[in-house]
Amino acid sequence: MDIILELARRIGPLDANATAEARERQDSLTKPQGSLGRLEALSIRLAGITGNSRPRFPRKAVFVCAADHGVAADGVSAYPQEVTAQMVINFAHGGAAINVLARRVGARVIVADLGVIGEIPPDPTIARKSIARGTRNLANGPAMTGEQAREAVCAGIDLVEAELPRGLDLVATGDMGIGNTTASSAIVAAITGRAVAEVTGRGTGVDDSGLQRKVAAIERALAVNQAIGSAPLNVLAKVGGFEIGALVGVILAAAAHRIPVVIDGFISGAAALIATEYCPQVRDYLIAAHSSVEIGHRILLERMELVPLLNLDLRLGEGTGAAMAMHLIDDAVAVLDEMATFADAGVSEKDAEQDPV
Amino acid sequence: MDIILELARRIGPLDANATAEARERQDSLTKPQGSLGRLEALSIRLAGITGNSRPRFPRKAVFVCAADHGVAADGVSAYPQEVTAQMVINFAHGGAAINVLARRVGARVIVADLGVIGEIPPDPTIARKSIARGTRNLANGPAMTGEQAREAVCAGIDLVEAELPRGLDLVATGDMGIGNTTASSAIVAAITGRAVAEVTGRGTGVDDSGLQRKVAAIERALAVNQAIGSAPLNVLAKVGGFEIGALVGVILAAAAHRIPVVIDGFISGAAALIATEYCPQVRDYLIAAHSSVEIGHRILLERMELVPLLNLDLRLGEGTGAAMAMHLIDDAVAVLDEMATFADAGVSEKDAEQDPV
Repeated sequence: MDIILELARRIGPLDANATAEARERQDSLTKPQGSLGRLEALSIRLAGITGNSRPRFPRKAVFVCAADHGVAADGVSAYPQEVTAQMVINFAHGGAAINVLARRVGARVIVADLGVIGEIPPDPTIARKSIARGTRNLANGPAMTGEQAREAVCAGIDLVEAELPRGLDLVATGDMGIGNTTASSAIVAAITGRAVAEVTGRGTGVDDSGLQRKVAAIERALAVNQAIGSAPLNVLAKVGGFEIGALVGVILAAAAHRIPVVIDGFISGAAALIATEYCPQVRDYLIAAHSSVEIGHRILLERMELVPLLNLDLRLGEGTGAAMAMHLIDDAVAVLDEMATFADAGVSEKDAEQDPV
Repeated sequence: MDIILELARRIGPLDANATAEARERQDSLTKPQGSLGRLEALSIRLAGITGNSRPRFPRKAVFVCAADHGVAADGVSAYPQEVTAQMVINFAHGGAAINVLARRVGARVIVADLGVIGEIPPDPTIARKSIARGTRNLANGPAMTGEQAREAVCAGIDLVEAELPRGLDLVATGDMGIGNTTASSAIVAAITGRAVAEVTGRGTGVDDSGLQRKVAAIERALAVNQAIGSAPLNVLAKVGGFEIGALVGVILAAAAHRIPVVIDGFISGAAALIATEYCPQVRDYLIAAHSSVEIGHRILLERMELVPLLNLDLRLGEGTGAAMAMHLIDDAVAVLDEMATFADAGVSEKDAEQDPV
């Protein structure tokens, strides 16, 4: 059977026993029930994902997938295309924002070249998974072949499976690719049917004319590829990117292994959208890290019914928001695991009747 | 001169040189300018607070101030008053949510009894600063004397100054006190002039009749004490609490020592409101941790023009939201301190012109 489909079929429902045990424990802890708000529900869902009523996540990884985009030729980015390769080298040297933020939360950074155009010197810390040196321009025809789309997804699956022997309790997605907000907006428009202008923002900071070029390129892309309403992996092939395909694979593989996946911002969100359209069950394994400045991000999160943990006006990508959200995820499970219960601590519970004493 | 006034006069403006240097460095880092959103502005303000263009905060403390409230007699809480003392003991034993969350972020927890009614066994880890065994019922007259209000503020100042020799880079506020959302709503109503119903929520979870009793008690308190529009420390005496007074002192003392103060939720926010009304300059030293479920919290944050970092529907207090926000504060300064610059990493900067290549 097809590798991707086989993997998706392994993604089952959350563990009902672990969920119930975690809920019962959460309600016995020395605080008013519900007073830790979204942290409580998050801890219970993490129990259901992992099948462990008191989960902990000591071994974390951020998968930063990088690739170039043919549509950069249309002037859709404020940065030159050479920046993709330069940033991959920066990731490998530990100097980028994601390196700093991943160190802070104790996550390793897996840097993967899915199809960068610029030269990347030999470096054993970079996973070489190049499908081709950049996609073709999605505004003129399909960004990649169907076969390349499947290769990209499988490359992401391989990245996760290669990390399993080292131990992997929590996964975050990250991206790098000049032009990839254009591909992501195209994916959101193709899947949701929303107007291009409603899902297209300024990316790393294009000016008004740059934004007009982005919208025009995406509108041409949707038309020339007849992308709207296509099957999820066909949308990936028509208007996606290699790094986005790899992130689809990362998401599916992590969920299949009952590992929670922290979804970064807009590009990671577009990958999650493809993954959830392909396999709706995967949605329960996803944690939305933050609400991006990109206007299409809110739309894709609503489609997946995910509420982000952070709202810090981020628009960097790389997995930076996901790394920060990991602090809160660790907080949520630490509370569940470490707090005293009312019985342990000899603390009185809520008054049965709330009449004046 | 008066100790509190003398301290407040030491709180100066942010350091302009450190602010400018931090801003310049932030803009030279290998990411699009502004792409880390609120984290960038936060890091720059932290430089201005500390006078260090690359600040770090290895030595953190959460000051959890506890006291009882005479207004509990009016049935304004879902929990019996004995819980205040029980939770102080739980804090000292390390079993409460704040203990777990403070450990996670590497902060020590300073537990202080400002006036708990229940018995607390001898424990050298609890700071004994009891002003009296609970306030008087604010619905019937002043909660405390003017002298007691000043004692409470001075006790908070002492708590911070006692921690300075151990090193103190970042302070968080926390509270415990059955009935203290009632006092906090009364403070917000007295200072802002807003209607009581607009600033009064369900605290730890009272039902509809409990909420009606809270609103009625606060309305009587404002009337009998002629509290609306009183000077900040008079508002504290009339309708506040001993732990709230101590937190006013913690905030003023930290700011006077150029230590940033992370303000937890509604009760800490009421203390911050008194502190900023007393000394407007202190506002620049405050970081709002989160947006509480309590409806009055938004109103007091708007009054101080502070935007909270987190929105997780918390309503626990103890400093729990502040401890979680410390992760993001450490993230912000780590990015500023550790990231590579464009020059270091050989990464191309933004195109001067954004025309198509």
